[in-house]
Amino acid sequence: MPVTTIEWIDDHIRLIDQTRLPEALVYLDIHDIPTLAEAIRSLRVRGAPAIGIAAAFGVLLTAFQYRGENTDELMQQLHETSQFLAETRPTAVNLRWALEQMMQEARRIAGASVAEIRDVLYRKAMDLFESDRQVCRRIGEHGAALIPDGAQIITHCNTGALATVDWGTALGAIFTAHAQGKKLHVWVDETRPLLQGARLTMWELMHEGIPATLMCDNTAAFLMQRQKIDLCIVGADRIAGNGDTANKIGTYYLALAARHHGIPFYVAAPISTFDFSLQQGDQIPIELRNPEEVTEGFGRRTAPEGAAVYSPAFDVTPNELITAIITEVGVLRPPFQEAISRLAKGE
Amino acid sequence: MPVTTIEWIDDHIRLIDQTRLPEALVYLDIHDIPTLAEAIRSLRVRGAPAIGIAAAFGVLLTAFQYRGENTDELMQQLHETSQFLAETRPTAVNLRWALEQMMQEARRIAGASVAEIRDVLYRKAMDLFESDRQVCRRIGEHGAALIPDGAQIITHCNTGALATVDWGTALGAIFTAHAQGKKLHVWVDETRPLLQGARLTMWELMHEGIPATLMCDNTAAFLMQRQKIDLCIVGADRIAGNGDTANKIGTYYLALAARHHGIPFYVAAPISTFDFSLQQGDQIPIELRNPEEVTEGFGRRTAPEGAAVYSPAFDVTPNELITAIITEVGVLRPPFQEAISRLAKGE
Repeated sequence: MPVTTIEWIDDHIRLIDQTRLPEALVYLDIHDIPTLAEAIRSLRVRGAPAIGIAAAFGVLLTAFQYRGENTDELMQQLHETSQFLAETRPTAVNLRWALEQMMQEARRIAGASVAEIRDVLYRKAMDLFESDRQVCRRIGEHGAALIPDGAQIITHCNTGALATVDWGTALGAIFTAHAQGKKLHVWVDETRPLLQGARLTMWELMHEGIPATLMCDNTAAFLMQRQKIDLCIVGADRIAGNGDTANKIGTYYLALAARHHGIPFYVAAPISTFDFSLQQGDQIPIELRNPEEVTEGFGRRTAPEGAAVYSPAFDVTPNELITAIITEVGVLRPPFQEAISRLAKGE
Repeated sequence: MPVTTIEWIDDHIRLIDQTRLPEALVYLDIHDIPTLAEAIRSLRVRGAPAIGIAAAFGVLLTAFQYRGENTDELMQQLHETSQFLAETRPTAVNLRWALEQMMQEARRIAGASVAEIRDVLYRKAMDLFESDRQVCRRIGEHGAALIPDGAQIITHCNTGALATVDWGTALGAIFTAHAQGKKLHVWVDETRPLLQGARLTMWELMHEGIPATLMCDNTAAFLMQRQKIDLCIVGADRIAGNGDTANKIGTYYLALAARHHGIPFYVAAPISTFDFSLQQGDQIPIELRNPEEVTEGFGRRTAPEGAAVYSPAFDVTPNELITAIITEVGVLRPPFQEAISRLAKGE
């Protein structure tokens, strides 16, 4: 069973504080929206699908805590929570998608009582949670079919149970292939600046008993040049209508190296990651992180005081470098524009 | 004036402990070979040209400390020091080159007295030191000619005053261009795992007042995709006869991205970096570093206990990705094999 990254407990949110891993497995009980927003901004909870669920739970939390009987007032509070949480991370689209799913549900019965709205939101949040679980399983199955027995795999950042409510996306495909009895070895990019690969992906792979080796991000190309690497598989934070994919900084670099060495490059992501409103990747907003995450992220200062820092959280991999996009409804192949346009129409 | 990274003081070696930068500028006075070897292995002194000088000073230290009158015994001790220091870092060839220069000098007058051998070694070490200074100046001038006014430059690791006895190689070209009045901006790869870019290159650039921005290593390709980058310039630890270049891990990755984006990729290195005995880069031994530098290099443990780690200190950039190699005798252009073969013949 995967670890439970986030859940709804009675009247509040419980989640693993991922900034404490791998040193300590600490759960946070969250009872208010500012604390939830801080947890999302600080990456205590992260991964596009998981922050979608966290945001949906935030809307639910607001409904649970509303003590009046005025539906309009409740709707106004839900709207404010939704607007506030939408701004916590600009790139991952699942966050906005989940908030919109919750708000649509509330608006659908806006004339109802406060209790009814709360009940509907509770069911919707549980539904999104359960649906994310199913989506992970299906992505895992579609992805595992692309992973040959004996594969040497490179991955970047963390796309496992800690990034979702179940097995994960890219890492879910690896877990599924492993569960099918395939022998695998995973090369894990440490993923600077916040080391989600070193701290979280290594932790998950070691927990599942899958052979894995950690390396600095700058090592992947040399590894491809010198060793037999069979495939790359990564997640996504937002995918544009043409397949251009925003994902953790370093993904584009990895995709370039994979192309140079003729290695397949797979993206695994739920349909909620697609932004059908964007034609191409250069329209995706790229979050800039605080310089301190680069210069003193792990306790010791490692750059001169006053050093200028450029720290984009994501980059955009052009569709032409992507071999296939693995979703819960199947594997999309180029030309992606056509396949994604069918997805948008719900075909 | 550049900082004095290493020097001979009366009867011993003084060098900056680079592992303490940028937090503290601490000088180490070294009076014995085991301490010197530890300083080289731990990268207290690093950079191919600087460790060449450190090794030459190590041979000199042995001669200074020999108290007997037996020339054979002294020669044996010099030989042992040389063998011992040669093993401290396997990739940089300047180390072996400098040791061989010293040993040749001692062997040349092997019948002489202990005092004469000591004097000859002193003059040779000072000569190597002074020659490295001149070499840096010439590399700086040849390199600066390739840097246009207003250039946006990417560099990797540290190739400045801290890596040499003067301005440096790749960074020396940048310093020289800056001194010529060119307006520049340098993008600095932090250079995991030991962060020589963040700790040392940023420190040197800020010290000289050259605008510079630090970034994680995985960011360079995105920067090339989104911003106008004019050129890459890096150093080298060993260059094979065909121009294949071993340099800090991540250099090959950077060269791949530069090629994809049509950006010139320059290597700056003294002739002592060429290993004429090797036909191509895959013959260069690649040093593997300790896992702890990756998993707890920041002071805090950032990977699970027992995590397997792959940490090569260097990679090899194939000659076809290199636009030009900047040496003290001029700029080598492809086909490198021919140009390097002329160098080997001393033409």
